[in-house]
Parts: sequence; C-alpha cells; structure tokens
Amino acid sequence: MIETTIQNWHKYVRGDLPGGLDQLLHDDVVFYSPVVFTPQKGKAITSLYLQAAAGTLNEPSQEDPGVSDTAVGSSEQTGSFRYVSEVMSGNTAVLEFETTIDGKYVDGIDMITCDQDGKIIEFKVMVRPLQAVHAIHQAMQKMLEQLGS
Amino acid sequence: MIETTIQNWHKYVRGDLPGGLDQLLHDDVVFYSPVVFTPQKGKAITSLYLQAAAGTLNEPSQEDPGVSDTAVGSSEQTGSFRYVSEVMSGNTAVLEFETTIDGKYVDGIDMITCDQDGKIIEFKVMVRPLQAVHAIHQAMQKMLEQLGS
Repeated sequence: MIETTIQNWHKYVRGDLPGGLDQLLHDDVVFYSPVVFTPQKGKAITSLYLQAAAGTLNEPSQEDPGVSDTAVGSSEQTGSFRYVSEVMSGNTAVLEFETTIDGKYVDGIDMITCDQDGKIIEFKVMVRPLQAVHAIHQAMQKMLEQLGS
Repeated sequence: MIETTIQNWHKYVRGDLPGGLDQLLHDDVVFYSPVVFTPQKGKAITSLYLQAAAGTLNEPSQEDPGVSDTAVGSSEQTGSFRYVSEVMSGNTAVLEFETTIDGKYVDGIDMITCDQDGKIIEFKVMVRPLQAVHAIHQAMQKMLEQLGS
C-alpha cells in the first residue's frame, strides 16, 4: 500500500503530480516537526509545513550556484536536497535524505504513514546532527513567516 | 536478513543475548550520533556509545519511581524507554522509540543496517524535537565521561 503513496510523493517532489498535496494528504493528517514538540493537525497546516520544508531544504547546491529556484517541484534536480535510501513495510515508509542548509550538513528522514486508501495520515521528520536541527529551526521560521504573510 | 539481526538486537536490549554487542556488531561498524556530526568508527567506540545511549535513554519511568537500574539489559522492562514501531526491508531496519530524559519527551529512531552475515555495519540515531536533542547531548556527555573514566 505505502509503495504507491511513495511513488506519488516522489512525483509531487518533482512537480509531476497534478493533484499535488491536496491529493496526497488525508484531511486529518498530522505533521511532526523535527524542531517543535506540538503535532500540527490537518491538511492545511501540514501543507504549509511541507511547502516550508521544501523551500528550506532545497537550498541550491554549490555546484550549481546560478540556480536559485526553490519551487517545490525542483528539489530533486536543482537543490542540494536528495533522497539517499528508502525502507518500507506495511503502511509506513522511511525515506532518508541529505541536504545542506546555511552550509550545514543535514542528514534526515521523512517517516510517512498512509491509511488503507493510500492517503498520508502522518508525516514525521527527524534530522541529525544538532547543528542541522538548529539550522532547520532558523530557516523554517523565516520560511513560515513568508508563507503565512 | 535484517529480521534476524533485529531479533538479536531486542534480545540484547533485554539482556538475553549471551554474546552481547561483540556478537552483534561488525568490526568496522560505524555509529552516527543524533548530536555529533563525526561518524564513530569501529566496534570498540560504537559499543561505548551504545552502552552510553542505553544508560541515557533508560531513565526510570515515573510510574515506577522505585526502580533505578540503568543496566543495558533492563530498558524494556523498567525504564521509560520503549520501541513503538518497526519498518524493515532489505538490509535496513528503522525502529522508532519514545522515552523521557530529564523530564523531556524524546521521539527517536534507531536506523540499523547489517551486512550479508547479519552483523550490524551501521547504527544511526535521530531524535526529535529540538529539546530532546539538547537533553540527549547533555546526558550522553555525562554518561560517556563515566564510562570512559
């Protein structure tokens, strides 16, 4: 079940999923931030966080300094963000990623759980090391202020 | 392949694996801390970190205040530490856990990779939220000083 959901997630990250997050997320999805304790509940706030995360994590790579497109759809092509491994079983997938934020190396996971219809009901992010959590904290605050204003 | 390794890991955590970490870990295993960037290479230093983590994460639960045993073998019975979910495929498993350190809620994962013989070749830990990373940072430093002295 989770396999199809993850295929669609990768399509979304590439900008190839017509229905976007609205199609992927359950109405009652819960987002767990790597920084903040409080779970974020519902499709609207989770979409906001995932868009902020896409903008934050998708810092243009140093090999490609001319590209500054931070749109959701371009992270796998132009930014430093890349998925490096996947583990899936049952209704849960763990996608490991690497990226760079403010020059700081970030090693993290997206832990994604879907319901019986393949809709994402839980999206949890963890990152290491400590300096990566700090870098994400600062960058996410800026990005959420921009998206929310 | 990873399933047998994880069965043995749980036996170890319960104190039920006669060979202990020496049997579980590959000589060239690499440990990735949730706090520190630098990978820790080799069986000796990885064993030290895993023992420190067991002591750190295994804070006695508040429901059981009389028990203060922080030995490796007792975490699943007496401490606040508990595994809450598992995802496995190929040579990798992701075990999610919850615990409390210094009164702070910790949500984390052990990402464990084994070789063709079932020996653990990589052990990576990530935790959320930010206050949990700080709590682990402080507790691990104390524990490593005690184990190393």
